[in-house]
Amino acid sequence: MPETFAKDSVGLVTPQTLHFDEPLMLACGRELESYELVIETYGTLNPEKSNGVLICHALSGNHHAAGYHRVEDRKPGWWDSYIGPGKPIDTNRFFVVSLNNLGGCHGSTGPRSINPQTGQPWGKDFPKLRVRDWVHSQARLADRLGIEQWAAVIGGSLGGMQAMRWALEYPDRLRHCVVIASAMNLTTQNIAFNETARQAIMSDPKFHDGDYTLADTYPKDGLAVARMIGHITYLSGDGMGQKFGREIRSGSFQRGQDEPVEFQVESYLRYQGDVFSESFDANTYILMTRALDYFDLAREYDDDPIQAFSHASCRFLVVSFTTDWRFAPERSREIVEALIGADKAVSYAEVESEYGHDAFLLPIDRYYRLFNEYMQGVSTHQ
Amino acid sequence: MPETFAKDSVGLVTPQTLHFDEPLMLACGRELESYELVIETYGTLNPEKSNGVLICHALSGNHHAAGYHRVEDRKPGWWDSYIGPGKPIDTNRFFVVSLNNLGGCHGSTGPRSINPQTGQPWGKDFPKLRVRDWVHSQARLADRLGIEQWAAVIGGSLGGMQAMRWALEYPDRLRHCVVIASAMNLTTQNIAFNETARQAIMSDPKFHDGDYTLADTYPKDGLAVARMIGHITYLSGDGMGQKFGREIRSGSFQRGQDEPVEFQVESYLRYQGDVFSESFDANTYILMTRALDYFDLAREYDDDPIQAFSHASCRFLVVSFTTDWRFAPERSREIVEALIGADKAVSYAEVESEYGHDAFLLPIDRYYRLFNEYMQGVSTHQ
Repeated sequence: MPETFAKDSVGLVTPQTLHFDEPLMLACGRELESYELVIETYGTLNPEKSNGVLICHALSGNHHAAGYHRVEDRKPGWWDSYIGPGKPIDTNRFFVVSLNNLGGCHGSTGPRSINPQTGQPWGKDFPKLRVRDWVHSQARLADRLGIEQWAAVIGGSLGGMQAMRWALEYPDRLRHCVVIASAMNLTTQNIAFNETARQAIMSDPKFHDGDYTLADTYPKDGLAVARMIGHITYLSGDGMGQKFGREIRSGSFQRGQDEPVEFQVESYLRYQGDVFSESFDANTYILMTRALDYFDLAREYDDDPIQAFSHASCRFLVVSFTTDWRFAPERSREIVEALIGADKAVSYAEVESEYGHDAFLLPIDRYYRLFNEYMQGVSTHQ
Repeated sequence: MPETFAKDSVGLVTPQTLHFDEPLMLACGRELESYELVIETYGTLNPEKSNGVLICHALSGNHHAAGYHRVEDRKPGWWDSYIGPGKPIDTNRFFVVSLNNLGGCHGSTGPRSINPQTGQPWGKDFPKLRVRDWVHSQARLADRLGIEQWAAVIGGSLGGMQAMRWALEYPDRLRHCVVIASAMNLTTQNIAFNETARQAIMSDPKFHDGDYTLADTYPKDGLAVARMIGHITYLSGDGMGQKFGREIRSGSFQRGQDEPVEFQVESYLRYQGDVFSESFDANTYILMTRALDYFDLAREYDDDPIQAFSHASCRFLVVSFTTDWRFAPERSREIVEALIGADKAVSYAEVESEYGHDAFLLPIDRYYRLFNEYMQGVSTHQ
């Protein structure tokens, strides 16, 4: 518990909820009549409204990217290492906007919200979302904040997909696009892991075909297994080995001993699964993994990423991590090659790290420095 | 359906069940009073009884390694590509013995068998097994068959662990040890995947804490998810990509379409999960993955693999596959290095393949040729 906050912390932050009454047409053909987005902002919007930076979150992220909600909070927001005064996303310079995406479970309209037409939680009937739906709702958010053009749109993983989609859908509304540990679409293996995670949830009898809230229950076990699958794949094999090895909880490998949870890594994974399953919504998890699976940057551009990126007009920073095997450096290089093919300005860094996909969330010196360097070159003026 | 069998097939085979009445002391400290092993044999034992080859199966394998049980069978045994007249494990030369391991669910004594003390199926009360227990029961099997020394003990994956344990436990009872796509112990990541698979099974309410048979039900969904997890990790990412890509079942990527099963790879995985969950036993799956997790070749040799292998007196063939990321070539090289350190005769081949861990089961030209070459050098005489 920090008695006072560090100098480079944004300190205490308070989420705001914004109501949107104008209907939002979704990629699935359905319409959301109205919706709410919960957001946090850090720093001050300049008079020109030209220093806005949008943070797009990944699968399990939310609006709470930096700072603390209460003085007692033990942990700051999920990207606190990179957002704050003097940090790469410098709140002395930028007005940083972070939101919980539509379909989320941390305050924005999603499966847990009340469907106005039924008076019941949406549950499984919440419309299917695509990355472009998030981008459209984020553009509405920009309108509401009076931000015509973002200094930068930034995201890791699924967030990077949103950032890229921004560059194609609203080329005039961002000057920089930062794409970290992402890809133009998922590999087959990634889809397979997501599907297995969904199966774990959907085959939990407490899932009730998505209507668990109505049934007054919750598919906690299924969601925990889903998270365990995800968690393993977000770490690198070597990183796990270094962290846990083959260490035995009981401290001894006594002949024949066979505890229910024996290896340290098992205990860790179960804990991760449990914590996640208590704080996340199963329908949101399904919805978000589906959006990941379906994302395909170049699909409507004749499957030609060069053609796709030719619509962009911002500058790009692309970052990957050596041991990230779910969004491997190779996938980032594909983005870079397409950007070069489309004659766009792009900087690319492959960062040495042992932390797998999770690296994008972690404080890593070289990553910090290059990110900082790049952001210092991002003007706060249009 | 083969009208007649191919010339290089062992043809029709009939499993045999052998009863063992002498108690078997297990590594867990419990004793199996009596047990049965179901086996198949191919080829003829020579008068010297010196041409025996033992096949040790992997996690989901069984005794049916080659040939057909009935003329109508569509598929032969799981290693039919490598066992038969003129094949690497040449039944014209060798007397090949393949068994279902203790704890299995294909006829040998395991969780599905009746516990003589209760008159009920063992279920979750079946003793925990270690690889060494299998090796000891296999030595009993050799005794029964009059085989004092195997020409070779051969296994892939978990089977390779058994083969290595043979070389240490009974150095005089084998002349060659063939270790394919294996490791001296599992990586942390492997343990993590196994644990997640077990959690999928154990959190299925139909698991009933392992007593599903008594409850007259079956944790089919949990076992299906477990198999899906396993299946993804036995394939290579590239192999999956080449086989399924991002292909859509419906054949179109119509805007907003959102079938329950949309990508081809999802349909494939669900099918694999379903088929497996109908034919395998959940308690056996837990028991076998635990044996995998606990296996640690050098643990009782001061964690020194060179010291461990110094007890061996046979020759070794070690094979790995380039895209196998669950039992990576690196892990095989560790075996080779330890063998060299212990001054043992070892041949090693790293085979180019796109099929991940599953490669060890598949017909791959270079693998076939080098395996064949090695086995031709295995004498049928002591």
